[in-house]
Formats: sequence, C-alpha cells, structure tokens
Amino acid sequence: MNILIVYAHPEPRSLNGALRDRMVATLTAAGHEVLVSDLYAQRWKAALDGADFPAEPEGARLRLIDASHRAFAEGTQTPDVVEEQRRLLWADAVILQFPLWWFSMPAILKGWVERVFAHGFAYGVGEHSDRRWGDRYGEGVFAGKRAMLVLTAGGWADHYAERGINGPIDDLLFPIQHGILFYPGFSVLDPFVVYRAERVDEARFQTIAADLDRRLAGLFTERPIAYRPQNHGDYEIPSMRLKDGLGGTGQQGLRLHRA
Amino acid sequence: MNILIVYAHPEPRSLNGALRDRMVATLTAAGHEVLVSDLYAQRWKAALDGADFPAEPEGARLRLIDASHRAFAEGTQTPDVVEEQRRLLWADAVILQFPLWWFSMPAILKGWVERVFAHGFAYGVGEHSDRRWGDRYGEGVFAGKRAMLVLTAGGWADHYAERGINGPIDDLLFPIQHGILFYPGFSVLDPFVVYRAERVDEARFQTIAADLDRRLAGLFTERPIAYRPQNHGDYEIPSMRLKDGLGGTGQQGLRLHRA
Repeated sequence: MNILIVYAHPEPRSLNGALRDRMVATLTAAGHEVLVSDLYAQRWKAALDGADFPAEPEGARLRLIDASHRAFAEGTQTPDVVEEQRRLLWADAVILQFPLWWFSMPAILKGWVERVFAHGFAYGVGEHSDRRWGDRYGEGVFAGKRAMLVLTAGGWADHYAERGINGPIDDLLFPIQHGILFYPGFSVLDPFVVYRAERVDEARFQTIAADLDRRLAGLFTERPIAYRPQNHGDYEIPSMRLKDGLGGTGQQGLRLHRA
Repeated sequence: MNILIVYAHPEPRSLNGALRDRMVATLTAAGHEVLVSDLYAQRWKAALDGADFPAEPEGARLRLIDASHRAFAEGTQTPDVVEEQRRLLWADAVILQFPLWWFSMPAILKGWVERVFAHGFAYGVGEHSDRRWGDRYGEGVFAGKRAMLVLTAGGWADHYAERGINGPIDDLLFPIQHGILFYPGFSVLDPFVVYRAERVDEARFQTIAADLDRRLAGLFTERPIAYRPQNHGDYEIPSMRLKDGLGGTGQQGLRLHRA
C-alpha cells in the first residue's frame, strides 16, 4: 500500500527523527511504498497568506475561502501545495508525526493543513440539503484512507490520563483527530504517543520502536475510532446537534461524538 | 492599564481587521494603553527552528528545550522574540485575536507561542518537590495578568454547542485556554466568539461590536474561568491526578479541571 508520512521536527538526530527512520524501514520491509514530507527539510511555508493565491488581483481584498476555492478550481495553487495534495491522493494511509508543543501540533504542520486542505478539496464539498450537510465528518476526499498520529510529549503519561492535569490525551487531540482528519473523510486510528520524550535511552527506544512496529503492522486492519458520521442519521440538520438519546449515559462534551 | 493585542489575520480589510480596530478604539477611549502585535504585518517567523538559537554551536544536534533555556538565560534570543516577551511583561491583559482555522489558532500565532514562550520564561520554572510541581497552571510569569481570546468561526453557533457536531467550543479551545494561557499563569476569561463570520453585514457588525465593547469593559473585573491551580491541593504529586472526590458528579474529561 502507499503511505505518506508528514514529519515535522527540525532536528533529524532527534527522537522524532529516529522514529521516522524506523517507520520508513518497517513499512518498506513490509512491502509498502513510503513517501515522507519532511516539512522542515522542505522549508515548508508555514503561514497561509496572500502569496498562496498568485492569481488573485493585486491589491484586492483577500477573502481566504473564495481565494482558496478559485485557486484549487482553476489550477493556480502554488506548486508546493499541489505536490502535497497529489501525495495525499496517492496515499492509502497518512501518518502525521510531530512533537506535541503546547498541547497541539507544531506551527509548521498546522500551516501544512491550512494551505493544503483547500476549499473544494478538503472542505466546502458536497450537497447541502435537509438530508446532508456537505461531505464531511466521515465523508469527503479522503474517505477510504486511514490516518494516524505519531507524537512525542515531554510530560508524563499520568498527566495526560483520565484525571490528569493536562487533560486526557484523546480530548486534547480531538481538534486534530476529529476536526482535521475525520472531517475530510479519513478513518482515524488511535494515536501512538511517546511520553517523557526527553528521557528515552537506548533500551527504552527499543521498546518504543517495537510497540510502534506492532501499530504499523495493524495500520490497515486495526479498528478506527468510532467517530459518528455526519450524514447517517445521528445529527439533526441543519443544527448538527446530536439527537436526543444518543451519546450514552454520563457521556458529555467531545465524547458524545464517538458511537 | 496596559493591553497587548496579538492579532493574526493576513487581511486588514477583513472582519478580524475591523474587530481589531474596534478594540483599539474602545480600549484607548477607556484610557488604556494598547499595543498590537500584528503578526502578518510584522512578517512573524512562524516555525520554531535552529535559527531561533544563533548562539548554539554550528552543526551541533539541536535540543530544543536546552537551546531555548540557554538562549533565554544568556540573552541570545532573536530580537523579535525579545520584543514580544517585553510586551507580554508590560501588559496587564493580553488578547489573542484570530480566525479559527481547522478548530485551532492559525499557524502564525501558534508559532508566536512556540518561539516567545521560552524555557525558563513561560515553562520550566519553579520548584519541583512533594508539594509543588513547578510554577504552572495558575502560577508562573504571567500570574496576575488576564487573557482573553477573540475569535471568528465560519460555522454556526449550534455546531459548537453542547451537543454540536464540531464539539463544544470550550472543549475545543481547552488546549489554548488551559494549556497555553492558564499554564504560564494567566487568569483566563471566557472567549468572545463570532460565529458564521462569512455572513456579517453592517447591522450585524454593529451588534457584535457592541457585545465586544461590553466584554472589554469587564476585562479587569469579569470573573475568570475557575481552572484549578496545580499547587493548591487538588492534584496528587507527582502523578498530577485530580484527587478522588473532586470534579463533581457526572463531570469527565477536560471539565474536571474547572472548580
């Protein structure tokens, strides 16, 4: 199968660099084709701005959604964005790999999402009616593809546990897992998280790498997170409110959106 | 009082630009001093990388936390970072203003956090013992200062409500409100959110601006979100687990961390 790793760490000799190399080796040995978008090495432009829309008239007010729509539809996107879209369409699975900085992805990776997930490509697609609210949350351009986060965190696992002070890792990652990946159609796997990333010696690295190998072996067979598809009857339209009676007793907030 | 607005939108003629101008006018008329860090206009460097640490030896492996610590302690940070730190220390209140892109802040603003919130400044400070786990979550360099998010979202308010498909806005913003602002000591106010931002005509803008004026009038008197301070007895040390019996019946996940 075809696998795209989008990798966001500035230092190749880091733990993240070693995990990236391990993933490439493991996946290749299993017979997959692997591409790596190494955002720092590619000097990826992080900030979405007017330079992303070279065909827009000089001096005109920049309306980002409209500009993104036109650039995608008319083929006037910048070449770096076009190449990443091509890789995403090629891939059967996408792995986003990054260090957790301030409880989210690094700016350079967030900017990859903002620039590559164009209007008409990753959002703003599909019919809006009394039965459907666009192709999103389980439908969309990436439907049928899988996605997984591979990340490192400086803090302890306990601090990210159910009652840990940082908040549970699945809730902290919801804006990424549900909002960035499930939204345009990916089937999203549980994240692979390395805690206490500053304290990884060679012995611990071997354990982590073996765990990661096991996750990669299940990349196409593991059961994805059961986020609720938008257009299958669980939500009112157009309020997009989860219907009464769904969500389970005692569930609240973000967790309502797992079936 | 002194107020810093950190503003992240590429188009000054946008709704965000109009709201920014309104805030400056309202706050100035009330007798406050206002500074705006206009990240796009300043061509803020979004990605944290080796160029942030010019005193590190050429070719050495970049260890970000150590490099950040040394640069802050030894006065070798880049001038743009030093200036933003100076503004933060000057401010009595900080407003982060941005469009919600993919359920989080724009990359350029995330990169402002990553580069300006240095080790030894905004994290990695204070005593670690059996009674304290550093100065964080309610303590730290910004203790005594207030922070508020002012943001626009394309989606409908219903979609961000308690059972809305995007997830409740307070949960989506938790990594920012709790993880970026409360962590280094800010008292965090409820966010000011404009929904359906693509559908704001002049009449609706006047209503929004009046609401915003009211929030700004309460910037120093409104009750902050009651996030739990880390070192006041609510959490076990070092697991940083919320103690049994705290958190209220039926509360779970991120909401446990509001008293």
